Amino acid sequence: MQLGKVVGTVVSTQKSESIKGLKLLLVQQLSHTDKPLNNYVVAVDVVQAGTGDVVLYAEGSSCRQTAPTDKKPVDGIVMAIVDTWEVGGKEFRVKH
Amino acid sequence: MQLGKVVGTVVSTQKSESIKGLKLLLVQQLSHTDKPLNNYVVAVDVVQAGTGDVVLYAEGSSCRQTAPTDKKPVDGIVMAIVDTWEVGGKEFRVKH
Amino acid sequence: MQLGKVVGTVVSTQKSESIKGLKLLLVQQLSHTDKPLNNYVVAVDVVQAGTGDVVLYAEGSSCRQTAPTDKKPVDGIVMAIVDTWEVGGKEFRVKH
Amino acid sequence: MQLGKVVGTVVSTQKSESIKGLKLLLVQQLSHTDKPLNNYVVAVDVVQAGTGDVVLYAEGSSCRQTAPTDKKPVDGIVMAIVDTWEVGGKEFRVKH
Amino acid sequence: MQLGKVVGTVVSTQKSESIKGLKLLLVQQLSHTDKPLNNYVVAVDVVQAGTGDVVLYAEGSSCRQTAPTDKKPVDGIVMAIVDTWEVGGKEFRVKH
Repeated sequence: MQLGKVVGTVVSTQKSESIKGLKLLLVQQLSHTDKPLNNYVVAVDVVQAGTGDVVLYAEGSSCRQTAPTDKKPVDGIVMAIVDTWEVGGKEFRVKH
Repeated sequence: MQLGKVVGTVVSTQKSESIKGLKLLLVQQLSHTDKPLNNYVVAVDVVQAGTGDVVLYAEGSSCRQTAPTDKKPVDGIVMAIVDTWEVGGKEFRVKH
Repeated sequence: MQLGKVVGTVVSTQKSESIKGLKLLLVQQLSHTDKPLNNYVVAVDVVQAGTGDVVLYAEGSSCRQTAPTDKKPVDGIVMAIVDTWEVGGKEFRVKH
Repeated sequence: MQLGKVVGTVVSTQKSESIKGLKLLLVQQLSHTDKPLNNYVVAVDVVQAGTGDVVLYAEGSSCRQTAPTDKKPVDGIVMAIVDTWEVGGKEFRVKH
Repeated sequence: MQLGKVVGTVVSTQKSESIKGLKLLLVQQLSHTDKPLNNYVVAVDVVQAGTGDVVLYAEGSSCRQTAPTDKKPVDGIVMAIVDTWEVGGKEFRVKH
């Protein structure tokens, strides 16, 4: 998994039938020391995340291992909202 | 998933039997702020996308989770046409 | 999938039992505008491709979705020989 | 697999049901000559690793091939604690 | 698959139960013209490769498609020892 920040959403009306109803979040990757990186994913939300949340996202086949994404053409999910993380004794606390 | 723009098509007559009849799109990746990136995929179209469309594409095993690509040697699909997306309050609207 | 050019072959006598008899091609990635990139894969040929051919190759689990590669430890295949491709109205025609 | 050093942990209360109870480690990648690289993963611990340990981590679908991660939306695991490794006759010994 | 050279081994006593007994090789990637690249994998050996051998390695789910790695948390294997390879008429012969 990677750390990311939810920075937006994607709207699509014409899409593969099985993904209708899924919320698509735009997630920017964060470094492990909380720096925004030049990398993003569009990920299906399975934990009611919202803009500004720091989250964990997964990629690949593991993204289909949740009830809402089972057997669907989805290769990115947000599967956790991060409260805090810690690196070398320094705590990173998510601001809301 | 990633944002991309359909920039072309690929024609192949000699190919693996199971992918015959599938439309192959050439998709250039877009940044989350709508900049064309130096990266592309050849992806099977499952949503009737066409040149100029901004789309979502998936890679890897998730690409086989649609009816036309089931159990086929396909590692890229276009699974949604994007209407709009939003980053930090700014809306990106697809021009046609 | 990615566009590539077959630039060579690989010979191995001591290998995993199940991949014996498969032809191993060395494929250099091409950009979508036909520039050779600094990236290659060794891929199993499933379409009788040869040196100089422009091809489509796939990576990952999708490579096992053909008869000759089914359930084999193969993460790269050449699954189509490209005739032409088109980007922004410009046609790229493969020379033989 | 890649070599990495456990540099921290991630705390999340709101997460996908199936991953509750799993320990999330922040692992920084190491080069094969023990240099910290600018790359990290958040990985589920399946071997009781702790901060400072040099470990092997795996990514992708292989991460679901352990009892605690079976059928879960996990794309990174720590599956071994490294004692020593050797490159070109030079031994790298993990300091605790 | 990629070309690589076996440059070392990794020793771990505390590891996921199912990978006990597997030999872990440290493999440095080679370019298709035999230049060592700044990239490596730790891969399970399934062909009795040794230090100095030029090999083919695979990554991802395909690594579980051999008898010793079946259903194990392994995302890298060495599945062939390379004798020679050829690029643009030039033969690369492995020296022992």
